[in-house]
This record gives sequence, C-alpha cells and structure tokens, in this order.
Amino acid sequence: MIDNPFYSHEFHGDYDLISVGRLDLEEGGSIPDCRLAVATFGTLNEAKDNAILVTTWYSGSHQIFRDAYIGADHALDPDRYFIVVIDQIGSGLSVSPHNADGPNAEIAMSKFPHVRIGDDVVAQERLLREHFGIDTLYAVVGGSMGAQQTYEWAVRFPDKVKRAAPIAGTARNTPHDFLYTKALADAITSDPGYADGEYGSNADVVAGLERHAGIWAVMGFSTEFWKQEVWRALDFDSKEAFVEGFLEPYFTAMDPNDLLCMMWKWQRGDVARHTGGDLDAALGRITARTFVMPIDEDMFFPVRDCRAEQARIKTSELRVVEDVLGHLGLFAVSPTYMPQIDQHLGDLLNSPA
Amino acid sequence: MIDNPFYSHEFHGDYDLISVGRLDLEEGGSIPDCRLAVATFGTLNEAKDNAILVTTWYSGSHQIFRDAYIGADHALDPDRYFIVVIDQIGSGLSVSPHNADGPNAEIAMSKFPHVRIGDDVVAQERLLREHFGIDTLYAVVGGSMGAQQTYEWAVRFPDKVKRAAPIAGTARNTPHDFLYTKALADAITSDPGYADGEYGSNADVVAGLERHAGIWAVMGFSTEFWKQEVWRALDFDSKEAFVEGFLEPYFTAMDPNDLLCMMWKWQRGDVARHTGGDLDAALGRITARTFVMPIDEDMFFPVRDCRAEQARIKTSELRVVEDVLGHLGLFAVSPTYMPQIDQHLGDLLNSPA
Repeated sequence: MIDNPFYSHEFHGDYDLISVGRLDLEEGGSIPDCRLAVATFGTLNEAKDNAILVTTWYSGSHQIFRDAYIGADHALDPDRYFIVVIDQIGSGLSVSPHNADGPNAEIAMSKFPHVRIGDDVVAQERLLREHFGIDTLYAVVGGSMGAQQTYEWAVRFPDKVKRAAPIAGTARNTPHDFLYTKALADAITSDPGYADGEYGSNADVVAGLERHAGIWAVMGFSTEFWKQEVWRALDFDSKEAFVEGFLEPYFTAMDPNDLLCMMWKWQRGDVARHTGGDLDAALGRITARTFVMPIDEDMFFPVRDCRAEQARIKTSELRVVEDVLGHLGLFAVSPTYMPQIDQHLGDLLNSPA
Repeated sequence: MIDNPFYSHEFHGDYDLISVGRLDLEEGGSIPDCRLAVATFGTLNEAKDNAILVTTWYSGSHQIFRDAYIGADHALDPDRYFIVVIDQIGSGLSVSPHNADGPNAEIAMSKFPHVRIGDDVVAQERLLREHFGIDTLYAVVGGSMGAQQTYEWAVRFPDKVKRAAPIAGTARNTPHDFLYTKALADAITSDPGYADGEYGSNADVVAGLERHAGIWAVMGFSTEFWKQEVWRALDFDSKEAFVEGFLEPYFTAMDPNDLLCMMWKWQRGDVARHTGGDLDAALGRITARTFVMPIDEDMFFPVRDCRAEQARIKTSELRVVEDVLGHLGLFAVSPTYMPQIDQHLGDLLNSPA
C-alpha cells in the first residue's frame, strides 16, 4: 500500500466508502473486501424508482460529475433524482492496487488481480441493492469507461435499467482502442522506476506518467483543438504550457498501478462476453431506452464505431455531441458542451422508459 | 559511427552516394561532407527538362518508390521522365548520425546537428544542378516528410518547380503533429539503452523502438484499418502478429539517432519561415501546378489540414486519395491505392505547367 494524498477527500470532496464484501472476479481470484467510493446527490423516493447510477471513466471520479454534470440547472437534477456516482475499481478511491490494505493487503500493488467491466457492474448492482435497496435504475449514465459500464449494465441486467446514456464510449472495445491503451500502458511499465509495479511512490514513475500524458495529448483531444489553440481559453500561453501545466500534473498525481488496472479493464470491455461473442445478440438484449452519445471529434471512440453499435439497439437513438476538444470534451470545459449533454440527457430522462 | 546492416544495398538495392560538399545548416553548424543517397530511373533528355525529383518520408527511402511507384505502368514512368529519388538527410542512407565517418566523424551519433527541411532542399538543389546539370524540375513528388520537402521546393525555388505533388503531408507542420512526433521521440529517448544517443547498437534501444512502433500502430493506420482487420490481407493472423511481425521489425532495424534526426525536421517543417511566419504569403509564392493529395483516413495529416493549405495555393487542386490504411497507405499495399495515385499524378504530369 502507498499513501497517495491525491486520492483523498481533500481532492475529491465528500464520498463514502461502502463495502460489498468479497467480490469474486471473472478472471479468477477475488477482492476480499470490495470497498467502493460512492457520492450521492438528491433523495431516494419511497418507491425507490428515481435512482440514476453514474459510472466513472479512466482516471476520473465522482468529482467531475459533482462539479460539472449534476445540479438543479442540469438534466442530472438532484431535486428530481437520487443520483449515485460509484467510482470504479482501480480509480484510486474505490479499492485499488495502491490502497489495498487490511483484508485486501494480500492483493496490494503488483498482486492486484485483473478486474473486468463486468466485475464493476456486479459490485455496483450489489451495492445499490444491499445498501440502498434499489432494484431498478431510472437510468445509467457514464462516459468513456463509464459508457462501457453503462452498456454492461444494460446488457447484463436488462430488467434493471430503464434508460441508458453511454457517452463517448463503446459496448465492445475496438482493436484500435486496445492498441491505444497498450501504448499508454507501455509508457508507464517501461519506466525503470515502475519496478514491475513495486515502486515506492508514484513519484518514482513520473517520467513514465509524463510520457503517458504525452500520448493522451495526441489522442485525447482533436487535431483541431491544437490547430485552433483552444487551450488559450483555458488560460495557457502555449501548447507546451498546457501539456506541462495541465495534462502532466493531472496524471503524475495518480497511481501507476491504479491506471494500469483501469486500462486492463478498458482494453477488454465487451458486452458480447454474455452471448458467446455475438455482439448483435448482446446489444439485442438491451431493453433500456438508450441514447448513444459519441463526441464528433473523438479520435478513439469515433462516431462511426458508436453509430454501428447504436444501430443494433432496438430502443436507441444516436445523439452526436459536437466538441472540438474531442474525447476530453468529457471534462465539460467547452461552454457549448454541457448544454448539449443536458439537452440529450433531458430528452432521455423525460421520455417514457 | 555504427555499422547497421539495414542501411545497405542488400536492403535498398542500387543507389549512388553523391557528395554536395559542405552543407551549412539553418540552425547553425554544418555537415562537412554532405553525401546523399540517390537512385535514378530513366534518362535525362538533352533539354534537361524531363526530370522529376522524388523526396522521401520518415523511415523510408528510394526503395518503396522503386518497388511501388515507379515503372512503365505508372505515372512516374522512366520511359518518359528522368526520375531522381534523393534520400533525405538522416534517412540512414544519406549522411546520418549513425553513418557519419571520415570527414563527418566530428558529427557522429549524438553530435549530429539539427537539420531542417530547408537544408535537405538546398542540398538536393545543389546536387541536381551540380551533378546532373538540372536547373528546373518537371515535377517534385513526395509523401509525408517528402510532401514537406515538396512544399519547401515550391516555395523556396518557385521558378525551378513546374509541378508539385505533396501527398499526405503539409507545408506547415501542425501542432498536433508536433505532439505526435514528440510522443514518438520520447518513446526512444526514454529507453535507458539510448544512453543520450551514444548507444553501441540499435539493438540496445530495441524496447524504445518497439514502443515507438506501438505508437505508430495507433496513429499510422486508421481506426477502420484495425476494425476491418485489413492486416489479414497482408497475411497476418492477428493484430498482435501484425504489430510484432511487421511494424516492430520495420522500425527496430533502424537507427534511433537517424529516426530522431528526421523527427526533429518533421516537427518543424514550415514554409512560412521564408515569409516571416506568414503562411498565406509563403503559399502565395508557389507557381507550380500543385496537386494536394491527402489520404482520407490519415489521422495526423487529416484532409482538412491539407485542404486549408491547398485553398491558399493559386494553381492548385485538391485530390483526395481514399485508403482505409490511413497515413501508411503510402506503403501502397492496398490494391486501390496506386491506381488513384497514378490517376492524379498522371493528370498532373500531363497538364501544362
């Protein structure tokens, strides 16, 4: 276990750690004490039918949703819904390689087992049912890896999900995306300071984390983001200052093993695991009203990949979000981003299931 | 100096090494004995007005042009034209960090000076004039970094270039492209075996070269290339086999310093250096009939970047090449690629200057 101050209430505000007990994993092995970080907004009604689950993306947490997506002025309105954001396994807040202690000490650091998107969803379902008594979800909403979890929910538990909004992500990870994630992972594991996952501090792996950030710079934003110098609107003077002042510190604060845990999951997200590899059959199981919401300038979850999946979901619509930031438009920094998200999510949440 | 058997006649066939003497460089310093590898096809006519210069791309040489682009069945027809392919400085065949010996021993390996696209073009112009007596070029043709050189020719020597075909490249490198190249370079220089450029063999840097290949896998081809498993047509059984059996051996045979020399140039290609940073003015200098030929699925020289430059060239046309391979469509492995190239180049070469 490593003490990394980034993964704390100081940086992530209020959240509760809730254990769902032992979690047996799809790949074998288990997490002895599966603690999930949970932030809630609003009130669960008596019928317990107003709950929205929000799932989190790679390197993200509930914090971005609290700060940008959830509020009385947004579709994710805590005055109407009970919104539960559950940080994914490996997020650094929920059980993760770097924080595995106590009953989880046996799976600390390099000994952390491989976790799949399905494991997250099983743990989330158990938490919602056992801790909150929630059996059905008004909606599941998530971006990127959160979209992977959203699809997994809709396919694995079709009767439990009334509405689904996978944003900037796919139900089956693409081979290009696998290779992208491999390049990201290699940047970290190749750092001699990584020491096969038994480093003493994330600071030992800073060079690898910076290279990882450098590859995000290439794929996370669009070519036009850089061409138009959109970073100027974020108060930077040069692209180098933006990379060094935003992307690098964003990632170097994080734990390498935690990032690698999430990447391993991301690479292998695939709802067709439920149907012997048949993606049509898997997506055909979805009964949730589903808005598939790719970002037009996304370089690694391109619209056409999302559209191909949307076309296979009976109760779905394609809602393309326009954002020159590309995939990292998810950070909701563009002033035109949240109005689109709110429009689409609002339409979805206000529509009959 | 390092003995690297890849850079030899065994792997690159016939070429001549021709010296243009001392080359003083834009960034300062000089190459004492600037030897360029040159392959020619066809015969220079008496008027010396049928010469076509072909420039080379990153990691490439005259070999790909000889094998795929040049022939009686192609627009680049040696029965009609005298085709001169000049390998760029840093290519490993022309003067490069790894082969700097004799009078160039003082600039071997990590001591090799920074070279710019303009330096290449100055050396090429001198070679054509002094060695072949060629004063004007029927055309200049090049892809990727070869397109950068093609643009540089058309802007620097407008009276010497009758026709120009920049394929899959830009006149001013984009910031996104700069960051992409930086990620590639970092993959190499971060390898402990790189030893600040003073490694004993490229084999010492194999891990870095493989990571560099892994990033090429993400950006060099299109997302659809991987989705459609186009590599199957190249006789591979899996994407991993393709990466390990094609991309990795392709790059690990090469010299790290040579690749870095080319990358430094690539990052800074900019014809507006001739006009105080004014790209409109620079492109306005072009009098060559110019066909701008981006590849539709190119992820780092996207069509829109090429179109924006084309719109600023008076005597130009945009000819988009369709190829699911993306940028590395340049390898001409798609059966539909060369017919398009030949159509466009044929139209250009058959049109009045």
